[in-house]
Amino acid sequence: MFSKYLASTIAAFLGISNAACNYGTSEFPREPNVPASKFSYTGLTGPLNWYGLNETANAMCDKGMNQSPINIVTTNATITHGASVSLNIPSYPGGADFENLGTNVEVVVNGTLIDANKTYSLAQFHFHTTSEHRINNEYYPMEIHFVLEAADKTIAVVGFLIDFGPTDPLLSSVFASVSEIPSPGNVTLTGPLDFSILQYHLTHNTIYRYEGSLTTPPCSEKVKWIIGTKPLYIDVDTYKEVKKVVKFNARYTQDGLGQANLLENAATELNR
Amino acid sequence: MFSKYLASTIAAFLGISNAACNYGTSEFPREPNVPASKFSYTGLTGPLNWYGLNETANAMCDKGMNQSPINIVTTNATITHGASVSLNIPSYPGGADFENLGTNVEVVVNGTLIDANKTYSLAQFHFHTTSEHRINNEYYPMEIHFVLEAADKTIAVVGFLIDFGPTDPLLSSVFASVSEIPSPGNVTLTGPLDFSILQYHLTHNTIYRYEGSLTTPPCSEKVKWIIGTKPLYIDVDTYKEVKKVVKFNARYTQDGLGQANLLENAATELNR
Repeated sequence: MFSKYLASTIAAFLGISNAACNYGTSEFPREPNVPASKFSYTGLTGPLNWYGLNETANAMCDKGMNQSPINIVTTNATITHGASVSLNIPSYPGGADFENLGTNVEVVVNGTLIDANKTYSLAQFHFHTTSEHRINNEYYPMEIHFVLEAADKTIAVVGFLIDFGPTDPLLSSVFASVSEIPSPGNVTLTGPLDFSILQYHLTHNTIYRYEGSLTTPPCSEKVKWIIGTKPLYIDVDTYKEVKKVVKFNARYTQDGLGQANLLENAATELNR
Repeated sequence: MFSKYLASTIAAFLGISNAACNYGTSEFPREPNVPASKFSYTGLTGPLNWYGLNETANAMCDKGMNQSPINIVTTNATITHGASVSLNIPSYPGGADFENLGTNVEVVVNGTLIDANKTYSLAQFHFHTTSEHRINNEYYPMEIHFVLEAADKTIAVVGFLIDFGPTDPLLSSVFASVSEIPSPGNVTLTGPLDFSILQYHLTHNTIYRYEGSLTTPPCSEKVKWIIGTKPLYIDVDTYKEVKKVVKFNARYTQDGLGQANLLENAATELNR
């Protein structure tokens, strides 16, 4: 199967824009400065050295003071009703592209989010295991992120924690083919995708809101986070299949919003 | 119920040795320099600032070059047969003390490990979620650590990864009362403990070996790690009960053995 990943990486090195593929957001390793092969979740390519990989592009990873993911303390959290947003993603009865990026598995779909009178365009959604956000210190086995960008380049991410339980139909259909993309660069199709239950789930429950960052290089800030307070569900067998492919791809919990970046703090402590 | 944790913390502040309780190892927050309340897994008391909590006692957390946990790459790992060690833990038909330390839940039992003609004394075992060690980049939902110390103060830790499956009888009996210790300082009794199957499991399979560190402050090195290559098992319901109490208590993956400490490396990068 043709590798979009390889093509994107080559395009990224050549500085070719990938806009035609709708990879408009900067969370993904398809930008000239952050090729996919350059970051991981282990050792010197892992989260504690993302800044070291590119000190200009990834400056916020070590210096930003509103970095994600965070531990959400529910008693202090900003919580609004999900009816305040409108997420519209068309059905994909024939499935959508499902790609192994090395650091993640990603589904390429279009759609829109309207929040506070601004429209954001959906480029893709992807998964983290474990969850990146924690709620009152507790983590969850997985987390799903829908990454969107407005015309003014503002980024929004709609996320849901995923707990163990009977797998939601959408996740079941997405992961039906995860074993077909075991290696970076592999591409396949998901099963048929219908987002209507997810949209209902989002708009009929409450949501946590905060302004944070991308959780991957370049860790850009001013990202609008919208996280459902009610989780989605996955069964253990499906989780194990996904984990076998994704392995571990959660950035460590950052310090509270507006607090010193934990890595800049560590450097200060070590230089005393 | 009387709080041993509180008593230990007070004793630690007063500099009173806790040897009579067999808390001989330094992994636990019962030493004068590392009171329980001083470290956590979040923010400025979390793993990225353990050094900042006590720059003398916890120097190795930021400077040690053989820190644990690591990602074990099986093609490079030192693997020996488990028959090379002998782990002997008496049965506790009436159960053993089971304590919530704030950062962990711990079972207080005696026993011995003999390895390379040296005898180590067991003080306790405890649990991490997620696993601290990763195998070929993949994490597991939990990990158990048996912490032992020899007469010359050398520390050994016998660990097992814990995957999802039918709960092993030992874990089932340990966790039967976990919901009775929801808060730091709570103490209860486990169900009856019989270690014979665990001992068989250890000595009839292969083990990973390496020399690393404690995974909690003071992050002391020259710790002998012995990790079973075959996991134990826990079912999802029991896991959820444990996670509700422990929440998240895994140190981030360290760099490879002999490599620069990731936090010292980060400081170097930030000071360029």
